[in-house]
Formats: sequence, structure tokens, C-alpha cells
Amino acid sequence: MSAAKVKAAVMGATGYSGFELAKLLLRHPHAAMPLFLSREVAAQPLENHYPEIAGGASYPLESFSWELLKSRGIDVLFLATPHELSRELVPEALARGLRIIDLSGAWRLKEAANRVVYGFEEDQDAAVAAELDRTAVYGLPELHREEIREAKLVANPGCYATSVIVPLVPLMRSGLVDTARGVVCDCKSGVSGAGKKPTQKTHFVEAADNFSAYSVIGHRHTGEILEQAGLHADELIFAPHLLPIPRGILSTIYLGLTRPVTAEEIEAVLREFYEGGHWVRIFKPGQLPQIQYSLRTNHCDVGFQLALDGKRLIVVSCLDNLMKGAAGQALQNMNVMFGWSEKEGF
Amino acid sequence: MSAAKVKAAVMGATGYSGFELAKLLLRHPHAAMPLFLSREVAAQPLENHYPEIAGGASYPLESFSWELLKSRGIDVLFLATPHELSRELVPEALARGLRIIDLSGAWRLKEAANRVVYGFEEDQDAAVAAELDRTAVYGLPELHREEIREAKLVANPGCYATSVIVPLVPLMRSGLVDTARGVVCDCKSGVSGAGKKPTQKTHFVEAADNFSAYSVIGHRHTGEILEQAGLHADELIFAPHLLPIPRGILSTIYLGLTRPVTAEEIEAVLREFYEGGHWVRIFKPGQLPQIQYSLRTNHCDVGFQLALDGKRLIVVSCLDNLMKGAAGQALQNMNVMFGWSEKEGF
Amino acid sequence: MSAAKVKAAVMGATGYSGFELAKLLLRHPHAAMPLFLSREVAAQPLENHYPEIAGGASYPLESFSWELLKSRGIDVLFLATPHELSRELVPEALARGLRIIDLSGAWRLKEAANRVVYGFEEDQDAAVAAELDRTAVYGLPELHREEIREAKLVANPGCYATSVIVPLVPLMRSGLVDTARGVVCDCKSGVSGAGKKPTQKTHFVEAADNFSAYSVIGHRHTGEILEQAGLHADELIFAPHLLPIPRGILSTIYLGLTRPVTAEEIEAVLREFYEGGHWVRIFKPGQLPQIQYSLRTNHCDVGFQLALDGKRLIVVSCLDNLMKGAAGQALQNMNVMFGWSEKEGF
Amino acid sequence: MSAAKVKAAVMGATGYSGFELAKLLLRHPHAAMPLFLSREVAAQPLENHYPEIAGGASYPLESFSWELLKSRGIDVLFLATPHELSRELVPEALARGLRIIDLSGAWRLKEAANRVVYGFEEDQDAAVAAELDRTAVYGLPELHREEIREAKLVANPGCYATSVIVPLVPLMRSGLVDTARGVVCDCKSGVSGAGKKPTQKTHFVEAADNFSAYSVIGHRHTGEILEQAGLHADELIFAPHLLPIPRGILSTIYLGLTRPVTAEEIEAVLREFYEGGHWVRIFKPGQLPQIQYSLRTNHCDVGFQLALDGKRLIVVSCLDNLMKGAAGQALQNMNVMFGWSEKEGF
Repeated sequence: MSAAKVKAAVMGATGYSGFELAKLLLRHPHAAMPLFLSREVAAQPLENHYPEIAGGASYPLESFSWELLKSRGIDVLFLATPHELSRELVPEALARGLRIIDLSGAWRLKEAANRVVYGFEEDQDAAVAAELDRTAVYGLPELHREEIREAKLVANPGCYATSVIVPLVPLMRSGLVDTARGVVCDCKSGVSGAGKKPTQKTHFVEAADNFSAYSVIGHRHTGEILEQAGLHADELIFAPHLLPIPRGILSTIYLGLTRPVTAEEIEAVLREFYEGGHWVRIFKPGQLPQIQYSLRTNHCDVGFQLALDGKRLIVVSCLDNLMKGAAGQALQNMNVMFGWSEKEGF
Repeated sequence: MSAAKVKAAVMGATGYSGFELAKLLLRHPHAAMPLFLSREVAAQPLENHYPEIAGGASYPLESFSWELLKSRGIDVLFLATPHELSRELVPEALARGLRIIDLSGAWRLKEAANRVVYGFEEDQDAAVAAELDRTAVYGLPELHREEIREAKLVANPGCYATSVIVPLVPLMRSGLVDTARGVVCDCKSGVSGAGKKPTQKTHFVEAADNFSAYSVIGHRHTGEILEQAGLHADELIFAPHLLPIPRGILSTIYLGLTRPVTAEEIEAVLREFYEGGHWVRIFKPGQLPQIQYSLRTNHCDVGFQLALDGKRLIVVSCLDNLMKGAAGQALQNMNVMFGWSEKEGF
Repeated sequence: MSAAKVKAAVMGATGYSGFELAKLLLRHPHAAMPLFLSREVAAQPLENHYPEIAGGASYPLESFSWELLKSRGIDVLFLATPHELSRELVPEALARGLRIIDLSGAWRLKEAANRVVYGFEEDQDAAVAAELDRTAVYGLPELHREEIREAKLVANPGCYATSVIVPLVPLMRSGLVDTARGVVCDCKSGVSGAGKKPTQKTHFVEAADNFSAYSVIGHRHTGEILEQAGLHADELIFAPHLLPIPRGILSTIYLGLTRPVTAEEIEAVLREFYEGGHWVRIFKPGQLPQIQYSLRTNHCDVGFQLALDGKRLIVVSCLDNLMKGAAGQALQNMNVMFGWSEKEGF
Repeated sequence: MSAAKVKAAVMGATGYSGFELAKLLLRHPHAAMPLFLSREVAAQPLENHYPEIAGGASYPLESFSWELLKSRGIDVLFLATPHELSRELVPEALARGLRIIDLSGAWRLKEAANRVVYGFEEDQDAAVAAELDRTAVYGLPELHREEIREAKLVANPGCYATSVIVPLVPLMRSGLVDTARGVVCDCKSGVSGAGKKPTQKTHFVEAADNFSAYSVIGHRHTGEILEQAGLHADELIFAPHLLPIPRGILSTIYLGLTRPVTAEEIEAVLREFYEGGHWVRIFKPGQLPQIQYSLRTNHCDVGFQLALDGKRLIVVSCLDNLMKGAAGQALQNMNVMFGWSEKEGF
């Protein structure tokens, strides 16, 4: 644990995830005052975008440049940016010795086939990109703690993907999941998951008193789930839905099992996998998490219920899409990278 | 079609479904002023419970008695009552020559094993009850139009059950569903589905900004789906969730298919089944209904999307739980029973 | 009352008010199929914008031209358009013999000083505009029924303005209001009042779980209230607030009285003024309307409570901003203009 | 500042305010593990009521007794109880040497006439009660910091009252308010202000998509405002409204001024009054706070706008009814009583 405070920069601090991260960094005991960056010169300070933090210090948004990052001695760069911009900035950032936590989907996928949905224009150096695709670490600390510790480039997971991967991976590794019967993930997210830019879909009058499914085939987070859980594309259905709430995700996951099991077996599989960690809470059999329980925390909550025949399993997981689904997980990754407790700063 | 107006009585007009039905009956062109009934003497008139209908006529709640029903020449009795009360009132009502549309779950199930969840205390005449369980017609007009026409006792379907049965039955009958892989129904309902009685669960502070699964095994509507779709218990998962909206249901149904199909095949199966009807709308392949589209209408909307392998199907259905899921369907049933257009009064 | 059906055109049918009006016209017994107009060629039909009306007929949006209006024999043109466009189209429309109901603020104000807030660039013929400003009728039927009957140009009132003017005018005319003490109107509106165009303010994440005041000095509807109620600018405060609901307005109006009165006096003033009308409902003393009571109706509900000293009055009025606050009132105006019952079509 | 940690007990920790306070105390650096009390024997531990805090330690609810308080060495007793119970418990608690922070309305009012609304049955010792009514300190630290420091009994203010008193008192003391013209307070609160017990009013279906005024004359918080601001009953109107959000209050306050002023004068009055404090934020002229800005903080935000004539003032204040309106202010009071920074523990 270093005595000096870490110097973090946040690119994209005015978006929902970026601002959540900014608030977390501002009260992290081992972080110096962060550098908030924007591509626009003379941007409004952060408190003008979010008056909730006004009244004390001012938090200027500074114009991004590599020189600025260098002169401020930045150790770690958070990218809360569109994936195109992350794809563009990362190689240079690494070359300049920065460690990076990227909240976009730019570097999460190992399989080129899965990356297709992002439509990267590979005008960048293909060899460099391929090397980074290979070495980037998928930033779900409960799965990749050791690699994150040393990682230069951490690809912070998708919000939906985290809610599915957390319960699914231990079950997959237990060998109890009959993948031939298919894994169905019915996922529901609050509106902040759609980002801060106003659109017809995020208009209050369209989203309130409403509920809808979208991208039920081919959502971008599908590849992350496939890769992390070790599933084939035809074994998974991942269907996202839009909830009329500002934040929070609940995923209901339906699994067939290879043999009849007891609830205690399932509970043991989950508890043992996450033992010693802090941010995944396993509920007792038959108790199901609700979105409210994990809002504004970094928890991913997991509950389940077995069908009477013991051969079908319904798993419910919840998290806050801006916390464990984005900024909270990014901070947890920073804690791992710098050797602090994963609870630090929450 | 009779020239005289039908005389309807509504028992339980102050609940959410009962009041929705009251409003529909008040503007139905072939219905006389309905009789609104309560078991409490000197109850407040309906407009005191629902000031939205105040300002014109008064709508007294009268004290229930068989004599009152007789003296008013009631033709059809709607029961928007708890299932225990429906179970109690129906035999006598039938003996007195009334036709009945029961909005509770009391008479929906043919299999005794499925009725267990209602825990009826069979203090009533067992032979009479058994006969009624046998002869009661499941009131989903799109499935049982002919029997409803002549029925004495129509058991109005559950709201969730309607949203699942409408898309599922045509697909089951097409032989395309691989039931061995299991049918998963992930259903989401607005809070009015939980009834008007205030509870912790329906408290605004608990329900708002929240979302939760409940009764994911053993919900009472399961038996209706099994019986109407012809599934075995271990082929179905029906998992309800509570949405933070006042009304509306969206059900996402996941099916494995017996062979690869095209979207056009699926569309044809659905369209042909509902051809000539008015209240089921089949969306084009890839277009999915949203809850807002059917709110305050009697529509059940159905859309779907095929997985790329053509062997897995995602169906989305929407309806208003107080309309097609309760009062609207009850009115549709009345239309069928009295020989009017099913669109009458909407 | 004419036997032939009236031919109406709606310019701007895809906005919230325009679509609400479209739905009303589609079921009005004396209206022919309306002509829906857009300035964009080859616009999507209306049911593509609002799938809730899909499933039956198609409702094309046709490209606006004076020739089209003529060839279709349009009798009445509804403008659900920005005020700049209404200001531009009206002179020509009148010259061509059309009757017009304008839902924008373009022609509501008699005083040039009040019109300043609209910033009209008077590139149009000043004499024509001045004449129209003079002859346009303020379309609040309960106040100007006789003039509306013959009017060529009806300026449909603002939503907030209606909610204030309806209760205020009878009280002003009674002479009981001590205007020297100031009239305070604290008004709250649902988000649809801000229009369909998505903005940061109407983003679900900004509007939900929130509440705010805006334009508390100088809101555009101020002039309407001043002119209709006969107040001086320094006698009125009109402060709008944004409610986290899709639709509905509640205005709380605070008045000092010239002498102590009884609740019965106030009730009598209000009831007498609106006697014989249908759309204003006066509540009993101490009973206050809520937004839910008038949603999706054309009612303006009015309740009040007197302070114990009998010298201060709190009035609460509610209406649906898209109905009595916009499209419903426009239809009511059409009813008056064509000699039908004001209830027709609701 | 004492080295030993303070020992706090919370009576009523399962209610909304009590639980908010429990969470604050659990992370307060100078507070020992609090004692959570209930009158029911064998109550469920706190995490069963609020699963959001499950996963770590357990927080039992213990059965209230004076002996228990004594054996645990409790220093300060928080009462998040109905006012009747607070009225009953306080004399004995004081006699036993406990310091008390009462979140109910039991001891807030100095004038017997104002206490009438609470309908206390004075079966307790009248002399004792009268003495406590006299010596209890109104717990708004920004007004009564010095007395709170030494107080034995702190009466934590009402949520609405705080939102009005904070902006009103500095203005009253400035002499600029023309009280003869009347002070109008139009206040809006989220549903948690109505408490955790489910009622028809707090049912999601009644509260959502709705907005209503209630108790516009005679609300219990009126007396607090009168006493703290030094107004006569006929100079004040305080009209509460129910917002369809879980938490937050926005109050709009309308004042006539004794002479034309500038915005700078008003700003100076407010800023000087709250200078050196932390929890009241004064916004720049014309900038108005929104409910979201102070949610889940202990801030009371104050903004204002002057009418063009400079003689009428519109003030908008916001706070979180469970924080600065209840538990947060209670903690702030504890900080004052024990000599810590008022920011401690937030």
C-alpha cells in the first residue's frame, strides 16, 4: 500500500457513469484530487452539470491533452467515453506508461467474431490493436483478481454482463448446468443505462408507465457473457428490457441442470466461489434480491429458487448499473490494481 | 341480439378490476344501468371511492341479497370478488338462473391438483362443486368462443395467464414447440395486479424505483397456463415480477423449436389463429409490443423474434391487466354470451 | 346542426397535443376521417409514431399544401404547431376561408406588451396581423362561448392558463378578490407539457424522482392570465413547476379576500358561473381535486378551502394538460363552432 | 471532543426516519454500535426489514426497557416514534439522565394553542410537561446552535417546517418581509413523509401518476413555522402537497417586501445568516434548487427570484425529508450536542 496518493484522471466525467466515478474518487482516501477531462475547451465545471456537488470546491473540466496528463503526473486514466474514443486513445496512453481502466466496451472481447458488433474501423495499427485485445484484462475482480493486479489495461465489464456473469460462472464451473437446454437471461435495466444523451426512448413520457424489450437478439453485451461463461452462441439467450426507473438492473436467469440437486448444493456452489470477497452477496435459498437492495452500493446480489423437480433453476441477480455495473466496479478495479482493500472508498 | 338492454350486477365494484368493469358497463350501449353491490350495508356510493366519475349521476353501492338481484331482474352477475366468495356464491346464483362471469380464480381450473393452491375449504356440496368445476367455461373468447356463448358460468382468466396463453396456444398447436426443452415465461406486471388493499409491497416507497421477482415457483396462475396450453408441470416455468407502474403486463416467453423455422412461418401461425378476431394484434417479425401500446385498451399485443439459428423463439406479449387481463375480457365475454360484437362497448 | 360531417385537418399530428387531438377526431361522430398533415414529404404514417393505434386502418401523414386542403374540402384547420408556424400560416388560411383552431400561443394575446415574450418577427403584413390579434377569439368556451360560435380564428388557451383562469375569473368578477394583496398561482405540470422533442430536462433520469420550479417570473402563459382575469402585472405571480408524471396539471391559487366570507358564498360564486356547462366540476368546500380525477378527460376540476379567518382562500384546480389544456379544449371549441353539444365526441 | 465513543440508542429504527438514522449512526466515527430498540419482544433484526444492509453484521432489535438502556450505558436516546410515545417516554428518560433527540412533534411547540393539533391527553404530570415544553430546544442547529449544545431534550424539527424556516427566518429578521401581505408556503413532499405504514394514500396506484394538496389549512407543522419565524396565524398560509416520488421536499415561498430591493440584497441577507455553516446552500439569484440536488444529503438548498418590481420575492427551498428533514438533522444535532463538527458522519 503506497503512502503517496494515486493520481487519477477521468475522461468523460459529465456522463452518468463518469460522474458517479468522479464522486467516488473525490472521497477515496488514497486518491488525490482527480483530474476531470473533456475534449471541449472551456467546458463548464462539473458542479454546473451536477449542482448536487456545488457549494464547496469547484471541479473544473480541463481540456484533454497528453501533455496535461504528463504534467499532472497521472497514474491511472479512467475512460468513461464512447467505445470509439477508447479504442483510439488507449494505445497512446499505454505507450505513455499510463494504466487504464476503460468503462466502454472497446477492449472487453477476446474473440474477433464477438467484436463485430462494435464495428471498429481498424484504421489504427492492427498489430498493436491485436496485441491489446489479447492482453487487456476483463475487469471483473471476482473472476480475474490476479490479472487485474498487474494489468496495464483493464476493460471494465458491461452492466448487464456483470449481472449475468456473476451468478452464471460459478454454476457453469460446477458442471451442473445443462447447457444443451439453453441458458435464458431475461434482464431488466433502469434508464440511466441508456446514457445521458436525450433521445425519444429516454424521454420521460415514453419511458414512464412503460416497459419494453429491445435488442433481444444481438445486444452488444452478449459476447462478454459467452466468453466469460464459456458458452456457445446457440446456448445463450440474453434479452434486455427497459425499466421505468432511473437506475438498477435485475436479471432473471433460467437454467436446466444436469441432475436433480438440492438448494443447499446450489447455495454452496455460489458461496464457495465468492467466499472472502465483499461485493457479491449470496441470498438464502428462496430469498430473492430486489433492485432497491443494491442501489447506490457496489453489491451484486444473487438469489435463486429451485423448481420442485430439482432440475430447473431460477437465479435472480441485482446490481446498480452505475456502480457494480460501471463506476463502482471501476473503482474496485483501481483498488485491486493499487493493492488496496476492495472495499476502500465505498 | 335482444332489443332490451341486459341487466348486469357487479359484486365488488370498488376494487380495481370491479371499478374498471363498472366504467365499461356504464357506457356499454346494450347494458342498462348496472347494479353495484357490496356486502356492507350503507356503503359509500361509487363516486366517493373514485371521484373521477363524480359530477353527474350518483352510483350507489347496494347491499347484496338474492332478493335484490331477483327484484331487479338481473341477467348477468359479475363477481369481482375474492375467490373464496366466488366459490361460495356461484352455486346459488346458478340455481337462481343467473349467468355468471367470475373474475376470480375460483372456477378456472379443471384439474383438482391445480386447484390446491387456492385451498378451497370444501364445506360446500362436493358434488355440486365438482359438476361446476367440470362445466365452467374458461373465459378466453379467442379460445373458447363457442362454449362461452352458451355458458352459464364463465371463469374469466387470470391477467398473467392471458398474456401467456394468447401467444402460446397457437404455437403449441402448430407442433413447433419443443416442450422437452422447457417453456420459460418471464412475466412483469404493474402494481394494480396486487389489488387495492394497501400492503407493504404496494406502498409507493417500496414499489417505486424498484423491481422484484416473486412466486417464481408455484404462482396461482400456473395451472391455467398448463391446462390451456396442454403442458406438463415440468415443462413450464412461469416467473412473475412486479413493475413500478400502475398497470400493464409484459410477458417474455422463451421457446425451443422442434426444427429451424422462418419468421414468416411463426407469423403465419399466429395470424391464422387470431384471424377474424379483434383484440389480439400480431406484430411484424422483429417488432415488439410495449406496455404503453395496449394500456386502457382490450388488446393483447404479440410480437416475436427468432434467434439466428431459427430454433429458438422469443415472444413478447403485452396487455392491460385491468382490461384484457380482467374487466375488458369480462366485458368481451358478456358480448359473446349475449351475441353482440366482441368490440361492443369498448 | 349540419347533417354532413365536418372535414378537419390537423397540422402537427405527431406531437403530444396533435396526436391526442387526432384520437379524439377519429371517434367524433360528426367528423369525417381527418386529414393529418406534415411539412415533411413521405412522413411515416401516424400509427408508426404511435403503435397504440395500429392494427386497423392506416393513418397517413400527408404533405402540407394549400391545394391539398382545398381539394379535400377542409372546413376547419387545427394547428398543433410551434407558434412561429401558426403565426405564419393563419393569415393565408383565413384568406382561403378556413376556420382555424390554433393550439399554439400565437394568437392568444390582445396586448402587444404581453406578446413580446413570443418574439414574433413581424415580417408578415403588420396591418393583417394587428387585425387578427384583435379579432382572434380566446378559445375558452366557458368564457367566450358566443364569440367562439362565429369565430374564424380561435386561439386555444395555454394549459397552465386554463387551469388558472377557470377558477379565477368567477372569483374576480364576484368582486371578492383583494387584488392589492396579490394573486399567487403555484402551478405544477406533468412532463408532456414540455413537448415531445427530447431534451435534458425531459430525460427520464432528470425528471424522475425530481421536482423543480422554472420560469417563475415571465412564463409565456402569464399574459393570458392577466388579460382574461383582468389583473395588472404586479398583482399576479404565476410560478410553474415540473412534476414527475407524464400528464396532468394541478394549480394552487392563493387569494386574499376583500371581506370575510363563508365557504357557501365561494361555492355559490363558482357554481353559478359554470352552471349549465359540463366540463368544469366544482367540488364541495374542503374537498380538493387530485390530478388523477381528471386525467384523460376534458374536465377542469375546482375545489377550495377557506382559511379560518374567512379572508384568505386557497383554490385547487386540476386538468389534463393534453385534454382540457390542449386537444380536448380544441375539440370542445370545434363543437361550439359547429353547433354541437360541447360533450360531443368525448 | 471526547475520546470515548458516544453510546446511542434508537427507538423506532424500522420506520423510514429511524432506519435512515440507524444507517447514519452505523458509520459515524464517534458513535459506538448503536442500540436498536423496539417495544415488541423478539422482533426481527433490522436487516430483515431492510435487506439492503444484510450481508455483514446482524443488527438485532432489542426489547425496550429502562434497565437495558442503563446497563448499556446509553448517552443519547433518539426517538423515531409517534408523538404520543415520545410524550410518554421523555420525562422518565430525562429523569434517568439521558439526553434525548426526539424526531416526533411532541416537544417542538412552545405555545399551548399550537400544541392543540397533537391532542395530547395530559394524563402525565402537568407541571413536568409544562417545564419540558418550556426547556425543550427546537433542534434546528442553524438557529439554535448554542442552546442545542447544552440541551437535555432536543425537539427535532418537522420536515416541511425545516424547508420553510430555513429561508424564512433570515428574511423575517432582515425586516424586508411585509407580513401584512401574507406569507404563502406551497410545499411538496415525497411519499416517505407519510410514513411506512401502508394506507390507501400511500398505495402505489393512488400515489403514482398523481399529485394532490392536503391539509392546506391546519397542518401540524404550521405551529413550528409560526413560532420560529415569529408570524401570526393570519399572516401565514402553509399548504402541503404529495409528490409521486419516494423522498424529497420542495417548498415555494411567496413574500411581499416592504420596499423594492435588489437580488443582491436578498442574497446577502441569506448568505450572511448562514455563513460559516455547512448544510444550508444559498444559490445565486435566479438559480433555483431542484429536489435531486439535495437527495440523500443533509443540505437544505435555497434559491430565489425577485419579481421585476423588486417588491415580490419567490423563494424555493429543497431538502431530503428523511435527512435534513429528519434523521440527518437529528445526527447534526447530536454532533452539536457532543461538540463535534456538524459535518461529522455524513
